[in-house]
Amino acid sequence: MSKQTSPQMNAQDHAFMARAIQLAQKGQYTTHPNPRVGCVIVKDGEIIGEGYHQYAGQGHAEVNAIAAATSSLVGATAYVTLEPCSHTGKTPPCATALIKEKFSRVVIAMQDPNPQVAGLGIQLLRDAGIDVEVGVLEAQSRALNPGFIKRMETGLPWVRVKLAMSLDGKTAMASGESQWITGAEARKDVQFLRAKADAILTGSGTAIDDDPSLNVRLTADELGINGPVNQPLRVVLDSHLALSSEAKMLALEGDTLIYCSADTKRKHSDKIQQIESAGAKVAFVETDSKSQGLDLNAILTDLAQQQINEIHVEAGATLCGALLQQGYVDEIVLYMAPKIMGDDARGLLAIPGLDKMKDTIDLTIHDIRSIGSDWRFTITPIRK
Amino acid sequence: MSKQTSPQMNAQDHAFMARAIQLAQKGQYTTHPNPRVGCVIVKDGEIIGEGYHQYAGQGHAEVNAIAAATSSLVGATAYVTLEPCSHTGKTPPCATALIKEKFSRVVIAMQDPNPQVAGLGIQLLRDAGIDVEVGVLEAQSRALNPGFIKRMETGLPWVRVKLAMSLDGKTAMASGESQWITGAEARKDVQFLRAKADAILTGSGTAIDDDPSLNVRLTADELGINGPVNQPLRVVLDSHLALSSEAKMLALEGDTLIYCSADTKRKHSDKIQQIESAGAKVAFVETDSKSQGLDLNAILTDLAQQQINEIHVEAGATLCGALLQQGYVDEIVLYMAPKIMGDDARGLLAIPGLDKMKDTIDLTIHDIRSIGSDWRFTITPIRK
Repeated sequence: MSKQTSPQMNAQDHAFMARAIQLAQKGQYTTHPNPRVGCVIVKDGEIIGEGYHQYAGQGHAEVNAIAAATSSLVGATAYVTLEPCSHTGKTPPCATALIKEKFSRVVIAMQDPNPQVAGLGIQLLRDAGIDVEVGVLEAQSRALNPGFIKRMETGLPWVRVKLAMSLDGKTAMASGESQWITGAEARKDVQFLRAKADAILTGSGTAIDDDPSLNVRLTADELGINGPVNQPLRVVLDSHLALSSEAKMLALEGDTLIYCSADTKRKHSDKIQQIESAGAKVAFVETDSKSQGLDLNAILTDLAQQQINEIHVEAGATLCGALLQQGYVDEIVLYMAPKIMGDDARGLLAIPGLDKMKDTIDLTIHDIRSIGSDWRFTITPIRK
Repeated sequence: MSKQTSPQMNAQDHAFMARAIQLAQKGQYTTHPNPRVGCVIVKDGEIIGEGYHQYAGQGHAEVNAIAAATSSLVGATAYVTLEPCSHTGKTPPCATALIKEKFSRVVIAMQDPNPQVAGLGIQLLRDAGIDVEVGVLEAQSRALNPGFIKRMETGLPWVRVKLAMSLDGKTAMASGESQWITGAEARKDVQFLRAKADAILTGSGTAIDDDPSLNVRLTADELGINGPVNQPLRVVLDSHLALSSEAKMLALEGDTLIYCSADTKRKHSDKIQQIESAGAKVAFVETDSKSQGLDLNAILTDLAQQQINEIHVEAGATLCGALLQQGYVDEIVLYMAPKIMGDDARGLLAIPGLDKMKDTIDLTIHDIRSIGSDWRFTITPIRK
């Protein structure tokens, strides 16, 4: 097959890659800590095999597509949303499998974002004489794995902050009453965001005041998956280890990790023992001298090292404000209830020191849609 | 013509009335204090004349349509968005004109909302043997004149509150800096809202701090009108008559009316004289014992008696909050800038005493759209 691609071939490449992306999407709730990857095998213009990665430790997308193929693969083209791996992990390398099956062409949406291995799979394929094209629907493919990519490229996880407020930017009445600002549909929508995440992060204020479950309560059917529902790691930032060992989340399926200050470690070994007996892990970080809170960079780096790609934050005004102000937030999903709570009520985001209009944190709103009686905004902060 | 209407005729009636409503809309910036009215004359299924009311004192819609007719009106049907008048005002009664021209049928979207004259025009037409149908596209026709209708039905003007805020519900930085939260497009959009109103209302805080012009700065071309641009009455609620006689608005085209407390009238005749010399009128109302502000009901009733149909409010958190809490607001147009100003910044609405979630002021959001880089929400409060 020639390296020269006609416009028609290009349109075909886009269509097959779009299908591969659709397949990858099926892994959105399950591939943790691996990336979501889809693969389509095409011969004579027809799809003869499809696959996607579902659970870590199980087959990669390419291997699943090969296994599903309905005719000989010799001379076929594989469309893969991510560069085939070149290393032996829990499964043998996919690049080797494609070579072994005598594929003549491999179309890849994006290189592996891991700088350690980027390009190695492509090189392996090219060295075997396979025609390789890279970059078809790259942006769409990147959007499949914002967390995996950010972690590989920066050593930090991708952070989504979920917020809920009234039209006038309030989250609780002056009395503290806040259940429920938004309706049942919006709250169910949040369950899907939780399910996508590797970890759910909160602060001690929310954890103590609301005693939240911070788990995924959707069924496999509701998530459209064939297999077990992953419970994201629950992470609580709790400087003084004030969370009760009776906290609801500690008794639920899934793990809870509590970060407290190094100072607390020195002074309160009894508390640590107590909460660890209740089922939580405890980790220690220094206090940030500037914000007086736990060092967010240290925590996020530590979580990334534990293969946490995407973090879903449900926290109060202080922690959400700090994450935003320190530039760690990649996306905000805001649910707005059509009601006014008045100026006595509690505000959305505590961000001290914004004195001038030029200090505001500017945003891009990508999408606004109605969810039941509420409105959902999908937002990214603009890095200045 | 039979009173029995076929489905086809009904569809025709709707189409012609829709055109009449479109014509009425052309008067949206100019008919004050009269209602916006459109008229279409149809014969043998063809439009032979169209008209709308443009300025008070000039021809009514029916008269303008008759004058524009291109063939004999005998046996024709008139479509009018509002019941033809039966009384001689600045112009002779339209019902009489329709009878004189020997129309055989008149289709009317809605009865006159003035309880003193409602139905009289219809009766006059029917007594003359004309086939009259009422209620075609009534809701759409009511929407042309929310202010005129509310004033006629309740003795109060229709009130629109314009608000501008950041995503987190803030209107100014802690320093007071607030110019500009929203972009040039949103600010221009507000000019069209001002132009639709009979009066622009503000409080002394805004009037003194911002020294706003509160006028319409659009040209006749920009408004799509053939004739002069109306300047709405500027109304300032200023208990203690603290507005400077140097205030910018006093020197601009159009009138300014200042409401101050009866107490101020008794004590500060000098101030009154000074501000009246600067071009403002001053009126006096009692202070509301509950809110400690000027009696809003008295002010709104007084404005309605001055034939103010629609009021556009651009004011601070206190006055907007009071109008909303006391149930005087019919519509909120909210411009939201995609930025975060933080919790130190000033809030949108001061509404004291909302302690419980059940106390919130619930809203219906009818429309959200982008205006430049900002978002515009069109909202109505839900009366509990």
